[in-house]
Amino acid sequence: MRFDPPPTALVLADVRRALAEDLGSGDATADLLPADATARARVLTRETAILCGQAWFELCFRELDRDMSIVWHAADGDRLTADQVFVELHGNARALVSAERSALNFIQTLSGTATATAAHVAVVAGTRTRILDTRKTLPGLRVAQKYAVRCGGGANHRIGLFDALLIKENHIAAAGSLTAAVAAARSHHPALLLEVEVETFDELREALAAGVDRVMLDEFSDADLARAVVEVAGRAEIEVSGGVDLQRLAAIAASGVDFISIGALTKHVRAIDLSMRVSLES
Amino acid sequence: MRFDPPPTALVLADVRRALAEDLGSGDATADLLPADATARARVLTRETAILCGQAWFELCFRELDRDMSIVWHAADGDRLTADQVFVELHGNARALVSAERSALNFIQTLSGTATATAAHVAVVAGTRTRILDTRKTLPGLRVAQKYAVRCGGGANHRIGLFDALLIKENHIAAAGSLTAAVAAARSHHPALLLEVEVETFDELREALAAGVDRVMLDEFSDADLARAVVEVAGRAEIEVSGGVDLQRLAAIAASGVDFISIGALTKHVRAIDLSMRVSLES
Amino acid sequence: MRFDPPPTALVLADVRRALAEDLGSGDATADLLPADATARARVLTRETAILCGQAWFELCFRELDRDMSIVWHAADGDRLTADQVFVELHGNARALVSAERSALNFIQTLSGTATATAAHVAVVAGTRTRILDTRKTLPGLRVAQKYAVRCGGGANHRIGLFDALLIKENHIAAAGSLTAAVAAARSHHPALLLEVEVETFDELREALAAGVDRVMLDEFSDADLARAVVEVAGRAEIEVSGGVDLQRLAAIAASGVDFISIGALTKHVRAIDLSMRVSLES
Amino acid sequence: MRFDPPPTALVLADVRRALAEDLGSGDATADLLPADATARARVLTRETAILCGQAWFELCFRELDRDMSIVWHAADGDRLTADQVFVELHGNARALVSAERSALNFIQTLSGTATATAAHVAVVAGTRTRILDTRKTLPGLRVAQKYAVRCGGGANHRIGLFDALLIKENHIAAAGSLTAAVAAARSHHPALLLEVEVETFDELREALAAGVDRVMLDEFSDADLARAVVEVAGRAEIEVSGGVDLQRLAAIAASGVDFISIGALTKHVRAIDLSMRVSLES
Amino acid sequence: MRFDPPPTALVLADVRRALAEDLGSGDATADLLPADATARARVLTRETAILCGQAWFELCFRELDRDMSIVWHAADGDRLTADQVFVELHGNARALVSAERSALNFIQTLSGTATATAAHVAVVAGTRTRILDTRKTLPGLRVAQKYAVRCGGGANHRIGLFDALLIKENHIAAAGSLTAAVAAARSHHPALLLEVEVETFDELREALAAGVDRVMLDEFSDADLARAVVEVAGRAEIEVSGGVDLQRLAAIAASGVDFISIGALTKHVRAIDLSMRVSLES
Amino acid sequence: MRFDPPPTALVLADVRRALAEDLGSGDATADLLPADATARARVLTRETAILCGQAWFELCFRELDRDMSIVWHAADGDRLTADQVFVELHGNARALVSAERSALNFIQTLSGTATATAAHVAVVAGTRTRILDTRKTLPGLRVAQKYAVRCGGGANHRIGLFDALLIKENHIAAAGSLTAAVAAARSHHPALLLEVEVETFDELREALAAGVDRVMLDEFSDADLARAVVEVAGRAEIEVSGGVDLQRLAAIAASGVDFISIGALTKHVRAIDLSMRVSLES
Repeated sequence: MRFDPPPTALVLADVRRALAEDLGSGDATADLLPADATARARVLTRETAILCGQAWFELCFRELDRDMSIVWHAADGDRLTADQVFVELHGNARALVSAERSALNFIQTLSGTATATAAHVAVVAGTRTRILDTRKTLPGLRVAQKYAVRCGGGANHRIGLFDALLIKENHIAAAGSLTAAVAAARSHHPALLLEVEVETFDELREALAAGVDRVMLDEFSDADLARAVVEVAGRAEIEVSGGVDLQRLAAIAASGVDFISIGALTKHVRAIDLSMRVSLES
Repeated sequence: MRFDPPPTALVLADVRRALAEDLGSGDATADLLPADATARARVLTRETAILCGQAWFELCFRELDRDMSIVWHAADGDRLTADQVFVELHGNARALVSAERSALNFIQTLSGTATATAAHVAVVAGTRTRILDTRKTLPGLRVAQKYAVRCGGGANHRIGLFDALLIKENHIAAAGSLTAAVAAARSHHPALLLEVEVETFDELREALAAGVDRVMLDEFSDADLARAVVEVAGRAEIEVSGGVDLQRLAAIAASGVDFISIGALTKHVRAIDLSMRVSLES
Repeated sequence: MRFDPPPTALVLADVRRALAEDLGSGDATADLLPADATARARVLTRETAILCGQAWFELCFRELDRDMSIVWHAADGDRLTADQVFVELHGNARALVSAERSALNFIQTLSGTATATAAHVAVVAGTRTRILDTRKTLPGLRVAQKYAVRCGGGANHRIGLFDALLIKENHIAAAGSLTAAVAAARSHHPALLLEVEVETFDELREALAAGVDRVMLDEFSDADLARAVVEVAGRAEIEVSGGVDLQRLAAIAASGVDFISIGALTKHVRAIDLSMRVSLES
Repeated sequence: MRFDPPPTALVLADVRRALAEDLGSGDATADLLPADATARARVLTRETAILCGQAWFELCFRELDRDMSIVWHAADGDRLTADQVFVELHGNARALVSAERSALNFIQTLSGTATATAAHVAVVAGTRTRILDTRKTLPGLRVAQKYAVRCGGGANHRIGLFDALLIKENHIAAAGSLTAAVAAARSHHPALLLEVEVETFDELREALAAGVDRVMLDEFSDADLARAVVEVAGRAEIEVSGGVDLQRLAAIAASGVDFISIGALTKHVRAIDLSMRVSLES
Repeated sequence: MRFDPPPTALVLADVRRALAEDLGSGDATADLLPADATARARVLTRETAILCGQAWFELCFRELDRDMSIVWHAADGDRLTADQVFVELHGNARALVSAERSALNFIQTLSGTATATAAHVAVVAGTRTRILDTRKTLPGLRVAQKYAVRCGGGANHRIGLFDALLIKENHIAAAGSLTAAVAAARSHHPALLLEVEVETFDELREALAAGVDRVMLDEFSDADLARAVVEVAGRAEIEVSGGVDLQRLAAIAASGVDFISIGALTKHVRAIDLSMRVSLES
Repeated sequence: MRFDPPPTALVLADVRRALAEDLGSGDATADLLPADATARARVLTRETAILCGQAWFELCFRELDRDMSIVWHAADGDRLTADQVFVELHGNARALVSAERSALNFIQTLSGTATATAAHVAVVAGTRTRILDTRKTLPGLRVAQKYAVRCGGGANHRIGLFDALLIKENHIAAAGSLTAAVAAARSHHPALLLEVEVETFDELREALAAGVDRVMLDEFSDADLARAVVEVAGRAEIEVSGGVDLQRLAAIAASGVDFISIGALTKHVRAIDLSMRVSLES
């Protein structure tokens, strides 16, 4: 696997939640199928997409039939073409139909995020700029979505408020100055990457003097971004954030910044169109 | 409240999951603010939207500050205009900034679903046709999304495989005939609404003869839908499903069917654009 | 398996709860047996009964010894005679004695419910009337008990407040009229079967006019039941509820109603008398 | 409170499980009542009973309406007479009707156990003999049922396999002798009461010599029980177990044994007949 | 296995908690290793120690690689010498390095407790006195630590407030007298061993007269302990508690008391020094 | 509060686990106290210590008596002197005695860690060197112990494998070179601080050239440490790890390194000696 999915315990928690909300007290139509009937199934995309969600898909079925056979013809991060059969299953028929919807929901949602990410990554290809996600995610699916961003060629910004420091206006106001806020944050959390959001060149200089690891440039024009890249001169990484669309991405990347973080990757979802065809075996 | 949100235990589980993934071992920047500082905040939309998610939003903050004051200027189901301040908060400053992102993620996601639903509902206004959701949902958020569909003016199809019977091709094949499948399902689950998916007029007639509560017409042309409405003559409800877009909705509704179920309401999400402004109090 | 047990995740939750309350920090007598000793066991009933609970019984042992061999001589829903050995086990001796009581408690409780149900079902055999359960269940065991009712030949009424609509006096009072209550309920939850409790023939007629799926006749005499069957004339299903005993069942069934729902099936339990005999192997 | 209920965390777990199985994704009829409507309710027994379950009953309502007013006219352990109103409630109408069934299920189940226990205790009144429960309980409700036994005037045998030692035939066989088994058990678990099951007078003497705290006399005739009491002469407590009915209780108690343990107290349940009457307030 | 570890469900809960706090959203360095790489590892102690924690260690690795091969060269309770390789592993390389720290933390903590216990046990060897633990434990690790005490040759005092009765000054004051407190406790909990803490010979006599199972002598001098042993004359077990150090242990044991309970066994921890060496396979 | 404790949800989880293991099915001695009795209590240290654990201590009592009054005379991070009363309580007597041991266990364990940390911090006072913790922690208590380290004046290294990158020998071997490993890690996780363990000056130079944020010098002599500080010249932070004792700390700090990480802070625990005195009120 090129991409390392989240710990199995987290994936399993996602899967059990999904199965619980779909199965409730039991699939009321499952007993229309004989308990020992088997079936085959194949899943195909109806459109071009980046695949993401193998671990979740597999566990949906394995929770209901530990011995389900699942054969993949593509891996997370692979580009699928329309009408490509990317996975085939064989196992207990009740398990197949009861887990189908939950399993597909994971693939369609996560592949949607991976595909959207890949579209953004393609725009900045050839530049030094990398695409980052944000904390604007679907509640309960953050770790899964962050994995999907990686599968789409993007990189992860901090997972949450705990694994990196992003100092904003309110923190600076409370600490008295940007320099004081940086010093306090470094002292409290010396193991975390430290980034500061700046709005002016004066703040940028203060941040650099304070020794931050990264600056987030807020509401800078393209010209100012280019000037900031020159001024920073490699002393810190540069991130640009905000409501960027595909059109403006190329311009920003041309300025030479290190990262562009994009909320749209994970707060919007356009599910991939999938189809699973099940054939009962007598 | 016009709309009855899910049981508090379910909402709370959603909220705790979201807070856990954002806070982890703790908000590393929170201690830049004094522990006893207070703050005020206001949230506004940047675009027209149907509000949804009050219960989730409130619990995000209340989990961190039981005494947070939250004053709403709109309710779930209300239409918000751009730049409208719809809620104001006052309470512990650390709690405000630590819960902000989780709370907004719920509102932006659920209001997105409500808003999309309302757009579909508007198209069929004045007809007998109602808009239904499906089981194509974001994993872990099904009950919340189904609530959002109601807030947007839609109605809920079954929550999962347990609270209504939808008999499909594979069930019919396993039972030997549509009539046999219906009889078995009725006998096993006499408390559940029973719907059958039909692809031809012959199947439709067999379903009606079997006494189903509802038929789902699959891949019927507009002309055939109209003919089916006449043929059913009120003996069962009629649902149309599949990949319908806004353009075709009006045509289908004009045929006089009872329900159109639309996966796009819940499998795609276009998050509402929100902004929360926090002011620290000295 | 003729009967489809609840999802494994639910059964496992029941089993873990039961084992936790019996094992606590550990079976204090288990270490009197060598850690690697094996044992054989056989379980027999001491009275005639309908078997129910295979899935729970198996998981109790498998949680402690994943490789326990369990061979059944009867299946859920089968009638056992007194002194019939219906299951034999072979595996780790400590696991056998530590799980014994929890496993038997499930079988004795659920078979008790299945057996009581079968006694009621036998009384109405040959009529169109079916026996339903209610929401009067042992807290925490509802889904398991509802499965036991099916094993005993009964059918399930709604699982809870979420999977079917039963409109009662208070709802009607709040809505203003029976007709208004039915319209509101249909509109809010078009995927759920809708039943109304009626106490008079006027209410019955109003319910039929409102298009309900089922009526529950409350405190109707046998003569009035027969008259109601004629009046309804198949336009809705008819259910009779309340404190019915075996003696009155036949009379009610003779009236031609569709369902009789009986709280006694699940609120009372007469555990089946079982015995498990364990033989240590040297 | 005369009787100390289980820790709130345990009661709350019972309650949440019960509410979850009844409410699922939400009470589908609750929104027929206005969200802010209030109601009053009173609960009465329809038969003589020992009350048990206050803590569970209260939490059912408080989980849905933290401010529900609950006024008790009797306490756990009190004898209720037919048609006695023993508790009155006032609060949110939706909360009242949504929690009603779950709350009543606890009271009817636990009061049933307390009432059955009291019937057994009455038979041995005036003797030194006390009535004990067993580990034959309803899965998931053991701690609650053990509390109900105390409310009915009985005493608790061990909760599970972890809080007292009961050495049986298999343990003795594995250890080589009763004496060896007792020595090993004492050595491993010196903080636990140690009881041995004996079937003959020889075994009884060996147990006494080994210094056990209690003996369980298995299948002893009434005459042998009396002889055993004389022989033990206070050197250990004496328990009689097995399938005892009310008729034989008096005879056993007359022999002077310390305890009679009775599986029927908790493995069978005859739910108390209750009625809750709800009045909506305009 | 000489020692019976806690139920697997408890061990697994400990392990999952530990893995969750170490892995969070995932081992960020794991993907530097190929997903299918394998590795070998060996663990050795750097000092003499009593081994404890096999079950926890194994599950840490098996949670990440179900097929990890784990070969032990020593068992819980065995004395390890410095630089002894006591376990070897072979399996997925990512799993090995991701679980390493959690697995070692269990072994080092629990072996520390076992080793400290063994040191105390050695001091009283040859006397009738046994070493007991207390409820002064590391929060969340009580059952594990109590198991470690057994592996070190000690015995367990009660696990918690529920599995034995220890009557102290406040209980006696509330009950009115020691005799009244003992009678009430026996009556409420006849299945639990009953111990009373006494500070004077008068209290000791009252306790003996009340028929307690054990007395805890508080702040008795060595001479008074010897006198108490004579006075008790086997009518109850004698326990000495409090802040005893190794030096005073021998003196107390010489007095002939049955038990010495020592908080230091479990409230202090000196982790064993371990080393795990991992070799990647190409 | 000077120190920001972990999120309440985490503290509460710790507390509920501790209460569950101590209370089990209930405090068997609690009902010796009247249900409505109140009591006062005061807690004092018997030795000098740094206080840590207020949040855990409070929740232990509040879980059993929501209205318990708790008045602190010191705060987390404060130095307590022997026999100082640092907290007083007033509330329900049963709650006080039932929660006492759990609450004290948290304070004694966490204050032990804070106190040990402070001792190490004192040695390096006046230098630029800061004391860090490690991932060698008590299973299940990592986040709590990391908080205790902060209260003792230390700083936190990464919480686990997810919030900072520490590249070791095996990662380098798998990646082919230190430079390749650093590049891959940066690319996969650009939001995480990146540290590399080096054993030679050549590796140190390669790490600096690769642009790491921090180097961990493994097994460097004091002289080599000083030389490394000169060579690094502020281009990266320098950490020294391993089995350092108090004696060697000063020497290392004198070399001018930024951090010394010390496993002993959290893998060993010397619990603080505490005493809680409870007075029942009539």
